[in-house]
Amino acid sequence: MAQHNAFYAQSGGVTAVINASACGVIEACRRHPDRIGKVYAGHNGIIGALTEDLIDVSHESDETIAALRHTPGGAFGSCRYKLKDMETHRTQYERLIEVFRAHDIRYFFYNGGGDSADTCLKVSQLSEKLGYPLTAIHVPKTVDNDLPITDNSPGFGSVAKYIATSTLEASLDIASMCATSTKVFVLEVMGRHAGWIAAAGALAGNGEGEPPHLVIFPEVPFDRSAVMARVEESVNNYGYCVIVVSEGARYEDGTFLADSGNTDAFGHRQLGGVAPTLAGMVKQDLGYKYHWAVADYLQRAARHLASKTDVDQAYAVGEKAVELALEGKNAMMPAIKRVSDDPYEWRIEAAPLAEIANREKFMPREHIREDGFGITEACRTYLSPLIQGEDFPPFENGLPKVAKLIKHRVERKLPEFKI
Amino acid sequence: MAQHNAFYAQSGGVTAVINASACGVIEACRRHPDRIGKVYAGHNGIIGALTEDLIDVSHESDETIAALRHTPGGAFGSCRYKLKDMETHRTQYERLIEVFRAHDIRYFFYNGGGDSADTCLKVSQLSEKLGYPLTAIHVPKTVDNDLPITDNSPGFGSVAKYIATSTLEASLDIASMCATSTKVFVLEVMGRHAGWIAAAGALAGNGEGEPPHLVIFPEVPFDRSAVMARVEESVNNYGYCVIVVSEGARYEDGTFLADSGNTDAFGHRQLGGVAPTLAGMVKQDLGYKYHWAVADYLQRAARHLASKTDVDQAYAVGEKAVELALEGKNAMMPAIKRVSDDPYEWRIEAAPLAEIANREKFMPREHIREDGFGITEACRTYLSPLIQGEDFPPFENGLPKVAKLIKHRVERKLPEFKI
Repeated sequence: MAQHNAFYAQSGGVTAVINASACGVIEACRRHPDRIGKVYAGHNGIIGALTEDLIDVSHESDETIAALRHTPGGAFGSCRYKLKDMETHRTQYERLIEVFRAHDIRYFFYNGGGDSADTCLKVSQLSEKLGYPLTAIHVPKTVDNDLPITDNSPGFGSVAKYIATSTLEASLDIASMCATSTKVFVLEVMGRHAGWIAAAGALAGNGEGEPPHLVIFPEVPFDRSAVMARVEESVNNYGYCVIVVSEGARYEDGTFLADSGNTDAFGHRQLGGVAPTLAGMVKQDLGYKYHWAVADYLQRAARHLASKTDVDQAYAVGEKAVELALEGKNAMMPAIKRVSDDPYEWRIEAAPLAEIANREKFMPREHIREDGFGITEACRTYLSPLIQGEDFPPFENGLPKVAKLIKHRVERKLPEFKI
Repeated sequence: MAQHNAFYAQSGGVTAVINASACGVIEACRRHPDRIGKVYAGHNGIIGALTEDLIDVSHESDETIAALRHTPGGAFGSCRYKLKDMETHRTQYERLIEVFRAHDIRYFFYNGGGDSADTCLKVSQLSEKLGYPLTAIHVPKTVDNDLPITDNSPGFGSVAKYIATSTLEASLDIASMCATSTKVFVLEVMGRHAGWIAAAGALAGNGEGEPPHLVIFPEVPFDRSAVMARVEESVNNYGYCVIVVSEGARYEDGTFLADSGNTDAFGHRQLGGVAPTLAGMVKQDLGYKYHWAVADYLQRAARHLASKTDVDQAYAVGEKAVELALEGKNAMMPAIKRVSDDPYEWRIEAAPLAEIANREKFMPREHIREDGFGITEACRTYLSPLIQGEDFPPFENGLPKVAKLIKHRVERKLPEFKI
């Protein structure tokens, strides 16, 4: 069969293992030189395609590509940019075809979450609607674990492992300080809509009194007095209280805790996230000394503590994406199918993109404990396999060694395009 | 020689490796059964001695004690409690003697920072001033790296490695997002008086444009317009800006940034640390989209990313403390002496506690770059060896395995004592 080029790009918030998927895509492409010529990576996601800002990956050595497997962040640059409808913004799609034709690109791999799946789905219609022969495959990625159909999303397992480990470690810290000092520790984690990451914090402990003592989910309306009663009970019973709170924690009426409408002395909206807000409530209502942490980017960039399961799966979906493309399976996404919980077994299956784009998977109610402050055994059974195994990166001079890309740009053949 | 018992306790804010020092002390004691009978650990520091709340360490297996080497937090409980002067609070000291005599304690090991060194120094005077034969040795520990005489403080190297790694990882994240999203990332780190931990963030990069682009030290008065000019320059030149800021950052007049005097709509002091405050300034002055993280306990509990150098030194000072005690060297502290930078070599020497208690070691001016926003080569040469080597803990079920102590309490022989 004829040889054509491939396009690969990264989109949306990055993860500790999105580059492991890039590694999977690129290494798989390199194993098929008869079918796939060059891999062109879009600089900053789909924007790279629109502006013809392409990185010629053939200039990167096998060693560099292998190093992507243990490099966090998005090595080719990501973007927050969603293609508009083909009907109203036809010029964008015509431009994509122009760029793909100019560089003989017939394979399109887009590595992202729900929004990016929508972009990939639109691109996959170029073939049917505009007659350009392209096979588009979406490579799943999101720390939020909110993609449907796939059992879990690559990127989530590593955040989960980081948050569970950090909760365990910080809990040992406050447990040793609480007799004469700090009584309450609040850890704020990502997850604006779905509480999967907060739930992972609960993996730090299980037995009676083991921290975290409270998990606060976006799925459960925040009830200040109920939370404070539980904090007080925990301090009374165990000497301290550890809380893992989702950034998306909200009141019954949908207002976020972090966006409490407070303004500072200059009339500016109050700064800060959920953790300081909640810690402030603890101080106000109960008077306890507190500490709080906001992990933010640290949690989703923490490749040093990645889950081996997650790294393996991130690589596997990248590899499988190429196989699907070579089989001509347009508008698909490699999804993770759980075969068994214990021992944990999984395989990759193809899922139709139309069933994935723009749909969010929230935590099922049966994963949240009845009192709303913790996880159930069903949730533990689901989450636990995802954090298994360590895959430490190589270290050099005391720090993780990361891939250094040349990022050789492909010569432009087309006039400039404003996005 | 006769056999007597030993007392060991942990004090002040804990670290990722204070239990490695405990391991060093206890294992060294177990190697001298002819001289040292039981090790009694004070529950919650010196409070355990005052209240006769003693843990009989002989009930812990060799395996459990060995596991302390990779367990963060303070396994025996720590405290924030400073002994008052012997002249004005003589009853406290008499109580200590009572407890020590009741349990035949003649060796006293106190594991802490500057304040704890003061407590240890006072206890060391029991012998001379009150006639009770005791050898007191201070075992150094502090993430702040502010103990004098010792080249560095056990506990610091691991925080330094964690902050340098986290800065590197989060920088890769923002670098990939900055084209269409976040431009500025602020990481707040510990260090209320000394900027050592913030300085460690600078180890993440070195070459032109490599993050972090700004380090904000407590030692350098905060100049908002100078900082903002540098942030803007960094965003213009590199597309983004990474800032590592010390929690102790302050204005010329000594006011902390985090304590800006702002109040919320209810008249309460504004919540939150330096990172959100600084991020808010960036938004106000420059309009950039930002993210911020506050590492808080996570940084000092992160045993999963400990520096091997730090773990080795923490163990070594514990071990050496016992040797000094057996040599009858009262009122001493095992200090780390740097023999050479490259290759890094160190040894442990005895330092007189009187020269250590209540003295803080700040960053020397020649370690801070002339513009005040980064570190010099001298500082890099000093810091770099301290983060070398990895010492990953064993993992079990996806999480770090930690020591589980029995904490068998010694039967009380004395009447209750109120502290």
